[in-house]
Amino acid sequence: MSANRLIYLPLGGAGEIGMNCYVYGYGAPDKERLIVVDMGVTFPDMDTTPGVDLIFPDVSWLKARRDRIEAIFVTHAHEDHVGAVAHFWEELGAPVYARAFTANIARRKFDERGLSPEIVRTQEPWPATQQVGPFSVGFAPISHSIPESSGMVIDTDLGRVVHTGDFKIDVTPVVGEPFERSIWEEIGKNGVTALVCDSTNVFSEHEGRSEATVGPEIEKLLLDAKGMVVATTFASNVARLKTLAEAGVRAGRTIVLMGRAMQRMVEAAKETGVLTGFPSTEPIEAAGDIPRENLMLIVTGSQGERRAASAQLARGKHFGIELKDGDLFLFSSKTIPGNEKGVIRIMNQLSERGVDVVDDSSGKYHVSGHANRPDLIAMHQLTDPKLVVPMHGEHRHLRTHANLAAQHGRRGVVAPNGTMIDLTTGKPCDYVETGRVYLDGSVQVGALDGVVRDRIRMALNGHVTVTLVLDEDNEPLGEPWVDPMGLAETGRSQQPLDAALEEELAQFVERAKPKVLADDDALEEGLRRTVRNAAQNEIGKKPEVTVVISRLS
Amino acid sequence: MSANRLIYLPLGGAGEIGMNCYVYGYGAPDKERLIVVDMGVTFPDMDTTPGVDLIFPDVSWLKARRDRIEAIFVTHAHEDHVGAVAHFWEELGAPVYARAFTANIARRKFDERGLSPEIVRTQEPWPATQQVGPFSVGFAPISHSIPESSGMVIDTDLGRVVHTGDFKIDVTPVVGEPFERSIWEEIGKNGVTALVCDSTNVFSEHEGRSEATVGPEIEKLLLDAKGMVVATTFASNVARLKTLAEAGVRAGRTIVLMGRAMQRMVEAAKETGVLTGFPSTEPIEAAGDIPRENLMLIVTGSQGERRAASAQLARGKHFGIELKDGDLFLFSSKTIPGNEKGVIRIMNQLSERGVDVVDDSSGKYHVSGHANRPDLIAMHQLTDPKLVVPMHGEHRHLRTHANLAAQHGRRGVVAPNGTMIDLTTGKPCDYVETGRVYLDGSVQVGALDGVVRDRIRMALNGHVTVTLVLDEDNEPLGEPWVDPMGLAETGRSQQPLDAALEEELAQFVERAKPKVLADDDALEEGLRRTVRNAAQNEIGKKPEVTVVISRLS
Repeated sequence: MSANRLIYLPLGGAGEIGMNCYVYGYGAPDKERLIVVDMGVTFPDMDTTPGVDLIFPDVSWLKARRDRIEAIFVTHAHEDHVGAVAHFWEELGAPVYARAFTANIARRKFDERGLSPEIVRTQEPWPATQQVGPFSVGFAPISHSIPESSGMVIDTDLGRVVHTGDFKIDVTPVVGEPFERSIWEEIGKNGVTALVCDSTNVFSEHEGRSEATVGPEIEKLLLDAKGMVVATTFASNVARLKTLAEAGVRAGRTIVLMGRAMQRMVEAAKETGVLTGFPSTEPIEAAGDIPRENLMLIVTGSQGERRAASAQLARGKHFGIELKDGDLFLFSSKTIPGNEKGVIRIMNQLSERGVDVVDDSSGKYHVSGHANRPDLIAMHQLTDPKLVVPMHGEHRHLRTHANLAAQHGRRGVVAPNGTMIDLTTGKPCDYVETGRVYLDGSVQVGALDGVVRDRIRMALNGHVTVTLVLDEDNEPLGEPWVDPMGLAETGRSQQPLDAALEEELAQFVERAKPKVLADDDALEEGLRRTVRNAAQNEIGKKPEVTVVISRLS
Repeated sequence: MSANRLIYLPLGGAGEIGMNCYVYGYGAPDKERLIVVDMGVTFPDMDTTPGVDLIFPDVSWLKARRDRIEAIFVTHAHEDHVGAVAHFWEELGAPVYARAFTANIARRKFDERGLSPEIVRTQEPWPATQQVGPFSVGFAPISHSIPESSGMVIDTDLGRVVHTGDFKIDVTPVVGEPFERSIWEEIGKNGVTALVCDSTNVFSEHEGRSEATVGPEIEKLLLDAKGMVVATTFASNVARLKTLAEAGVRAGRTIVLMGRAMQRMVEAAKETGVLTGFPSTEPIEAAGDIPRENLMLIVTGSQGERRAASAQLARGKHFGIELKDGDLFLFSSKTIPGNEKGVIRIMNQLSERGVDVVDDSSGKYHVSGHANRPDLIAMHQLTDPKLVVPMHGEHRHLRTHANLAAQHGRRGVVAPNGTMIDLTTGKPCDYVETGRVYLDGSVQVGALDGVVRDRIRMALNGHVTVTLVLDEDNEPLGEPWVDPMGLAETGRSQQPLDAALEEELAQFVERAKPKVLADDDALEEGLRRTVRNAAQNEIGKKPEVTVVISRLS
């Protein structure tokens, strides 16, 4: 038996969909050399993270082992896989490897943060491999909803790990390499210790559909359209952009791309040669000159984002273009849970303009980029691993995926974030603290620092500043006063809220003992309690309070 | 031609799903006598209404015409129809009519607000009618997902209006009256001026399914269950509660109801005689003594509400009951848009406990309470109105429903909130300001008052209190200081945030001209701008600011 071990440790992405970050280690226990696969972000929401810009996995565990990290590999260019790499790079310092398109996107992110784009190295696809410490690592092309997605083939003295990354089985993906069964069979031929596998669509029971099935349906829809057509999808879904644009051209329409993210993606895809034969497009400025029945806009904002092109067009004139009665708006996308209200808002604004909205409810105008249940089973069978480790899923996805493996006679293990698995035994061998870090404005704050919690409390309860000035002898100079924010102006006594609160505070100060008036903590606590109770009584809310005590000296 | 007119005015519910409030008027223009059908609430969310307790339609238009209101009719006991009646009653003062079960629920609400339950009068169902001013109004039984739902039959000298309320076509609804085509044909026989019609499910293309189809499927599921079974649905869906309980009993299980809302609903349904033959249940306290394989809990919280029984059980022990590996949790409900994240949170917590979760994705364990597209067409045909006025829907629902009517050769009109329709001509005859009022703690605030907007800003940007004390000569006594809330403690200069902000503020004060120091407004503005810019520079956020200037005099 070897003294070395081969470990897997998810720091993000296992127990949630988003902020993927997976660590592999090989070596003597607690001295393993490490590689990281993906370092992504997840997105904030008002419910739990108001005002936050981005959410990262907490990679403290890696930072504390910086000298053991051999390299960071990025499977593909989706934000939940590549979005955090540049943010953490200075603290981790390892070289970053990706295929050309992903590297192109990653380099822009390094550049934006003032880091050298050369940190990101381009690696050729499998069968090419990169030796980093005890690992030999290859990028095996796999189909997904963005070009050049790859599964990682990770070889060590303790066997091979296949990390699928995000994938679907699509032999006609429109853009990029088709899924090739023979490659994966070949990869699995000499034994696979563990398959670490995408779980996103484990609840989808039917075999996934190819990107190539979408185009003809969209073309039919466009041929019936009388006015302007606008279609939206994920900016990074370059294949869908091509599908849409080609369907538009076949239906006799001139294509205009709208939205910076989309233009950037198409540019990167063309630069790196993954996108060829994209129909010629006209610049936005020319759109106004094209008869609306001959125009097709392909725009950003499929998730209802308020600043994206789709929302702007729904609200009114955008780049001189205004939608109206008889136009058609196509959501060639699914709505990610949590984004429903934003998408519905746009649909209703479009309805008010008389625009017909078509979404994915028919199943014809969008296909997922993830493997459905039968495709997951196919991938298990192709690579024939000793162990299946579900990743890229909430807990329910991981558990259902592990059960699926078991139903087909294969061992599966549920390993949520922080669970270190010995891939040889298939058993947990350690538990690591994991969590989230927020990019809040320009600084990082821990999810448990209380910063965002305080903001949520102000959102729920409002805020009051209470000010009291005292002289050298601790005698109040005048009465305390309040500055409320985010609270009703009038309460049940029908007088202004501030007057009602100040009346109670004045009584408190009048009754306060000299000992309390001399003691900042006791005085602050008394003022806080008084104003909260008074507000509760007046308006039924207990606000957050800032007490300002000025002592003249 | 009559000098009188018959008008329709939605104040809530047309252009949204929620807070239904529809006004009908008959009489000389601007002197119409009025009746109100429904006065409901909608529910707040963190995105737009943090800290708000309930959302009401703005009924200022009605308040200003209080002396013209003959009566308020409540079609059924769902919160979006009955929830606001007691809140506005003192300002409107009209008698409230409802059928027995609805009246029972409404009276509890009046009682809770210290109002006499006798304000709510019980009316017998159609063909009984109530004459109120120029209106003769009847409650025609109609099937929905709560007992005793009714469509309103409103007769005037200018013809009959049929207001469906919420409905589906269900001839075997398990609890309550089946949908009777003959009643609606009879109602339509002598001509209907307008059908004001539920639009919720206009996007559902297939004929709706009966409540009676759900029981056998649930029974099959339960017969396969090995451990404890927990099922959740809307508390007010009394028929579903019976369906669930009966399926549980047939599968050999003892039934325990959990959650106050559910117990209250069953109690009201039994009191009013609408619920009979409900299987006997055991009290929660007895649940611990029942072997888990013989136990079925029916619980509140199908929408992921944090305090409901489902969420409590997902988090841990609740009333001594703890879910574990091998138990089954059934969502016999759909997830209302916006509630996805809360429901998913519970599903994942259950997954962590090893509980198998079954939801409605198969379509077998839930049926909607609203009429699908073919059922809407059937209702149009049964009542044969001259005009179809879609209600109870977002704009896209109303528009699609009006188009549907037109496709079948019938006139439809889209009338969102505030659009007054002359029902005889089918044309808008006035536009009224409408909006929302928030119950915020114990007081009402207008949606546009800025109270909630300020809270949202604090949630996004954090808050800083800036304090400066000046003497009688406008000379600063010491330097300004700050109390930040909801902001990172350290910014890019690596010193504490408050120190960095105070440094900038001190410089501002030092440089400030005597004229500025003497002028509260100028000084406040200068301090505010300085601290916001300094924060932007340090942490990339511009906080909300309360400036406190203390002048000794």
